[in-house]
Formats: sequence, C-alpha cells, structure tokens
Amino acid sequence: MTPQHPSATSALPHPAPVTVLGLGPMGVVLAATLLDNGHPVTVWNRTPHKGDALVTKGAHRAATVAEAVSASPVTIVCLKDYATMYAILDPAPLRGRTLVNLNSGTPAEAHAAARWAAGHGIDYLDGAIMVQPQLVGRPDAVFLYSGPQDVFDRHQPTLTTLGDPRHLGPDPSLAVLYNTALLDLMYATLNGFLHATALVGTAGVSAAKFADLAVDWFMPTVVTAGLTAQAPDLDNRHYPGDFGTLEMNLNALEHITTTSIEQGVHAAQPHLMKQIAEQAIAEGHGDKNYLAVFEVLKNPTHPQ
Amino acid sequence: MTPQHPSATSALPHPAPVTVLGLGPMGVVLAATLLDNGHPVTVWNRTPHKGDALVTKGAHRAATVAEAVSASPVTIVCLKDYATMYAILDPAPLRGRTLVNLNSGTPAEAHAAARWAAGHGIDYLDGAIMVQPQLVGRPDAVFLYSGPQDVFDRHQPTLTTLGDPRHLGPDPSLAVLYNTALLDLMYATLNGFLHATALVGTAGVSAAKFADLAVDWFMPTVVTAGLTAQAPDLDNRHYPGDFGTLEMNLNALEHITTTSIEQGVHAAQPHLMKQIAEQAIAEGHGDKNYLAVFEVLKNPTHPQ
Ligand SMILES: NC(=O)c1ccc[n+]([C@@H]2O[C@H](COP(=O)([O-])OP(=O)(O)OC[C@H]3O[C@@H](n4cnc5c(N)ncnc54)[C@H](OP(=O)(O)O)[C@@H]3O)[C@@H](O)[C@H]2O)c1
Ligand SMILES: NC(=O)c1ccc[n+]([C@@H]2O[C@H](COP(=O)([O-])OP(=O)(O)OC[C@H]3O[C@@H](n4cnc5c(N)ncnc54)[C@H](OP(=O)(O)O)[C@@H]3O)[C@@H](O)[C@H]2O)c1
Repeated sequence: MTPQHPSATSALPHPAPVTVLGLGPMGVVLAATLLDNGHPVTVWNRTPHKGDALVTKGAHRAATVAEAVSASPVTIVCLKDYATMYAILDPAPLRGRTLVNLNSGTPAEAHAAARWAAGHGIDYLDGAIMVQPQLVGRPDAVFLYSGPQDVFDRHQPTLTTLGDPRHLGPDPSLAVLYNTALLDLMYATLNGFLHATALVGTAGVSAAKFADLAVDWFMPTVVTAGLTAQAPDLDNRHYPGDFGTLEMNLNALEHITTTSIEQGVHAAQPHLMKQIAEQAIAEGHGDKNYLAVFEVLKNPTHPQ
Repeated sequence: MTPQHPSATSALPHPAPVTVLGLGPMGVVLAATLLDNGHPVTVWNRTPHKGDALVTKGAHRAATVAEAVSASPVTIVCLKDYATMYAILDPAPLRGRTLVNLNSGTPAEAHAAARWAAGHGIDYLDGAIMVQPQLVGRPDAVFLYSGPQDVFDRHQPTLTTLGDPRHLGPDPSLAVLYNTALLDLMYATLNGFLHATALVGTAGVSAAKFADLAVDWFMPTVVTAGLTAQAPDLDNRHYPGDFGTLEMNLNALEHITTTSIEQGVHAAQPHLMKQIAEQAIAEGHGDKNYLAVFEVLKNPTHPQ
C-alpha cells in the first residue's frame, strides 16, 4: 500500500502542505512566506545548511528529494534551471501530485517539462516570479503561471500566499515567455534611460535632476499613457499616421543618433532604432505611425 | 524716432503682446492658445492662409517678418528648423526684444543661435515643446527652456499660458539636449514594448492582453519604481551588486536573445544590449549591478 496523500481531484486542506526544492535566495523566501502563513513546509536543498533558518521557523527538512516530494500534495521547484530539476527529481513519487516549476527557462524547456510531467502522471504548472525576493508575499507581487486551468484553480489559495498569481492560459510556455518579454522591456527601458542620461550628462546635468523629469513626469505622462489604449491597434495592424508619421519619427531618430555622435556618447542604440525604422519605411509603412515598426520586429526576415 | 516698445528691462504688461512666426501644426496651436488667454497676437507664416482661422479669432496678420517682430516685445519662432529661422529673420528689428525659439535642433545649433542673438543685441531663449499640439495650454504640458534666468523670469507669465515652463539653466543647449534625450528614452521604451509584444505574440498572446500587465503593472511597479531613488548612484558611479550582478543580468540578456532567435522575432535589440553588458563586464564591472552599463554608454571609446 502506498502512503495516503490527497489525490489530484480531492479538495486540498488550507493552508496546504507544500514542499520546496531549492533554497537559493528565492527558494528560501518562498518557503519562509509559506511557513509564515501557516502552511506545513518541507524543504530540500543540495546544500542542506541553507535550510537551517527555515527549520528553526518550523520547516521539516527532508533527507532526500523523494522524501520531500512525498510529504506534500504540491512541490514547488525553485532551482537554477530546468537541467537541475531533471538532475535531482525522480518522477515516480510525484505521480498523482502537482509540480510547480518556478525556474527561469525557455518556452521549449517549458513545453518539454510539461510533456515529461504528463508522461509520468504529474500535474504540472510552469511559473515565473516577476519580483525580487524581498517582495514575495506582498499582495501585488505578481507570479505568472501557465498550464491546465483546473490545476491552477486547485492550488490558487496556496499560490496566493506567495503573491498575486496570474494564470496566463493552458500553454505551459506562456509563463516563461512572458517573463522573458517583460525582462526584455525592462532592459530596453533601462538602457534607454541610461543612454538619455548619458546624453544630458554631456552638458553637466546630473542623473538625479534628469530623472525628476524623465521618470516622474515624462514616462507616465507621455510615454506609457495611451499605450494600453493603442495596443488593440497592434493586434489589428492598424497604424494611422494622422498625428505623426514614421517618416517624421525617422528624422527624430536620425537626430538622436547624430546628437549622440556629436556629444561623444554611445550611438549604437539610436542607430539600431533608426535602422529598424528605415526598414519599416522600406517595407511600405512610411506614412503610418511609429508603432508600425512592430511589423519589422515581429517578422524580421519577410518584407511585406 | 523709433516706435515705442517695452524695453528688455521694463516690466511687461500681462497678457503681453506676442508675435508667432511659423504656423505649422504647432505654431497655429501656440498662437490660438495665446489668443484664448487674452494676449494680443501677431502672426506671420510663409504660406499666409494658414493664419486665416487665427485672424478670425482676433490675431493680427503681419505682411512681413519685420512688421511682425516689431509688434511685440517677444517673438516665438516655431519653424521647421534653425536654418529656416535664419532664412526668414532679419535681426535688426529684434534688437532689444526677446526671441524664443521652439524649433527642434541640435545642441550645436542652439549654441550658435544664442551667439547670433547676442551679437545682434537680442535676448534669447531656446526651448523645446514636450507635448503634441492638442495638449498645448494644459497646465501639465511641459515646455523646456534654456538661456538667461532673467529673460526666462521676465516672460514666465507668457510662457505659462502655453503650459508648464521649466527653466533648465543658462546653457542655451539644454532644452534641445533634454528634448533629444527624452525622445531617445521614449523610442527605446516603445521599441522595448513592441519587441516584447512580438515575443509573446509568437504564442498567440494579443498586444492588448500583454499591455494590461506590461504597461499597467510592470512598468510603474517594477521598471521605473526606484529609478529616481537610484539616480544619485549614477552620479556617484556607485553600482552595488548586492541584489544582483551584471554577470547575472548578462545571463538574462543572453536568454532573451536566444529566445528571440528561437521564436523567430527580430533579435538585434536584445543582442546589442547583451554586447553592451559584455563590454561593461570586460571593463571590470561584472560584480556591480546592471546600472554599471552607464559607464559604457557614457564613454564608448575609452575602456576604464
Ligand atoms: N533571485 C531573484 O531575484 C529571482 C527573481 C525571479 C526569478 N528567479 C528565479 O528563481 C530561480 C532560483 O533563483 P535563486 O535566486 O534562488 O538562485 P539560483 O542561483 O538561480 O539557484 C540556486 C538554487 O539552485 C540549486 N542548484 C544549482 N545547481 C545545482 C545542482 N547542480 N544540483 C542541485 N541543486 C543545484 C542551488 O543549490 P545549492 O544551494 O546547493 O547551490 C540553489 O538551491 C532561478 O531560476 C531564477 O531565475 C530568481
Ligand atoms: N507637431 C508636433 O507634434 C511637435 C511637437 C514638439 C515640437 N515640434 C517642433 O515644432 C516645430 C514646428 O513643427 P510643426 O509640427 O508645426 O511643423 P513643421 O513642419 O516642423 O514646420 C512647419 C513650419 O515651418 C515653416 N517652413 C518650413 N520651411 C520653410 C521655409 N523654407 N521658409 C519659411 N517657412 C518654412 C512652415 O511654413 P509653411 O506653412 O509656409 O510651409 C511652417 O510654418 C518643429 O521644429 C517641430 O520639431 C512639433
């Protein structure tokens, strides 16, 4: 007889027992937040002593991964990567339980993990943590999940302990793909801010002074205001040029590139944006608005 | 005897007479806003009929630039560029008056215009309009100005009719440099958003759905929150790596680049950011935080 554990379909007690595998900076905070909210928590880490403070708080430290996984209906994995997950996990004791993977990875890795889990009778959610460890547990700390709706629904109370869980859909790759896209947006914005700060710095303007205007006024008021309203235009490939055309924006990008060169700061970022705008114009979008560069970014190799 | 006009040092009546040269989409709105707020307005445009609606509203249409300039203590120029300004302006009737130039241009052009004005005894402010025409006149419509503090102070009531005038300092190039930097930030952010949207689009996610999270939650909560607080670190070249190092961020940028290639979207933007991060690491900043790429953007040719 196998040890009794809640089956995949029965309702879970709340706060439900949770196993956390991986006690890096993030895993430690996940386990601590669950403990603080009354969940029975079992932990395992390759380097066991990283769980010492958690054990003091009341966590159970399992000697093996199999023991850890067997202790709870749901196991959260927060390891370096997917390869590490396969290296440590024996799928057998997970059969009939839920595995929630919060490692970063690629869409292909998420698809492969979902197939692997299905092949072993494991309910699987892929996830991504959109905040730094110190924000875990706050109600606005967004965690992204993808995978079967019913698995998400069953564990939503537990996942809500960690933050604001958003289910993106059944395609298991959505969470890591969103994560990658959001980080992409973050780096692009940071690089834009740093490059702009470098430009004004050539006239002795401090970053602190520039940020006052650029971050506190310009970003919300001019840059992102209206973007949500314009997003459906991207879906409809509708880029009306009434308030300014891509041709006009190309002039501005040329101007930014020239000014960067004249002022002696790095010019590759504006130069690349200028090239992308030129390509969009070459593909026939010159009289549309700036958002038409989306056509080039989506589809780099096929002029249309 | 020359016609009487308020001298540069006497207090101006308010609402003061204003001349507007250039009635493109922006100049028309500037003149109309001044008229609506009780300023006597004189206009001139190469193509005169573009002033018809303004004349109906009560503007005086001058037959020549010299006549237009002579009608007011302050002339606002809103033309295509600096070259157009020199082409139409005879400096003689501007002597002892104020010229406010709102054309876009380069820092070098702004410096040259300030020298030209000084050589002709003209008080000169260089400026940049940070909003589209339909927002002119709103109290949060930012206009940037640079040039002598006393000239700005004297005309501040008039400039406040147009929006929120911000005086950046005496260096005449500051307004156009800020303008260029802010547009640079805008394009970088838009391109980041469009590229991220292209990435999630490969899994069938709509731009509208992505914008909900990316623009409404992620941008203010994760990306720009804290940037103003971190700006002094840029000024102090202090990039502590305690919450994550440039090496870690390089992994993420490699991951974004690879995912872009795998998903078949344009990969040059993340690839360039990866190269910039690599250069910063090669220059010894690997254990600092991501903002250390500022050192590369500021100073592209001199490894330090
Ligand atoms: N930290 C953040 O700000 C943050 C934010 C969002 C998402 N994430 C994601 O969360 C995941 C975990 O991140 P993290 O910051 O906690 O640290 P991490 O360095 O990415 O991962 C550390 C964990 O992986 C384990 N590990 C690494 N190689 C192993 C191996 N060969 N065998 C067994 N275990 C191995 C470590 O065990 P040892 O302790 O024994 O080394 C530790 O438990 C990552 O995928 C990361 O991308 C992190
Ligand atoms: N529109 C915006 O959203 C916006 C926002 C911020 C800043 N700005 C800046 O404001 C300035 C004006 O912009 P705009 O949108 O109004 O239109 P524009 O197309 O940049 O400039 C049009 C004005 O320049 C005149 N002009 C052009 N070439 C001329 C020439 N050879 N001789 C005499 N006049 C000439 C036009 O006269 P005609 O009418 O006779 O052609 C018209 O008055 C620009 O520097 C622009 O960068 C515009």
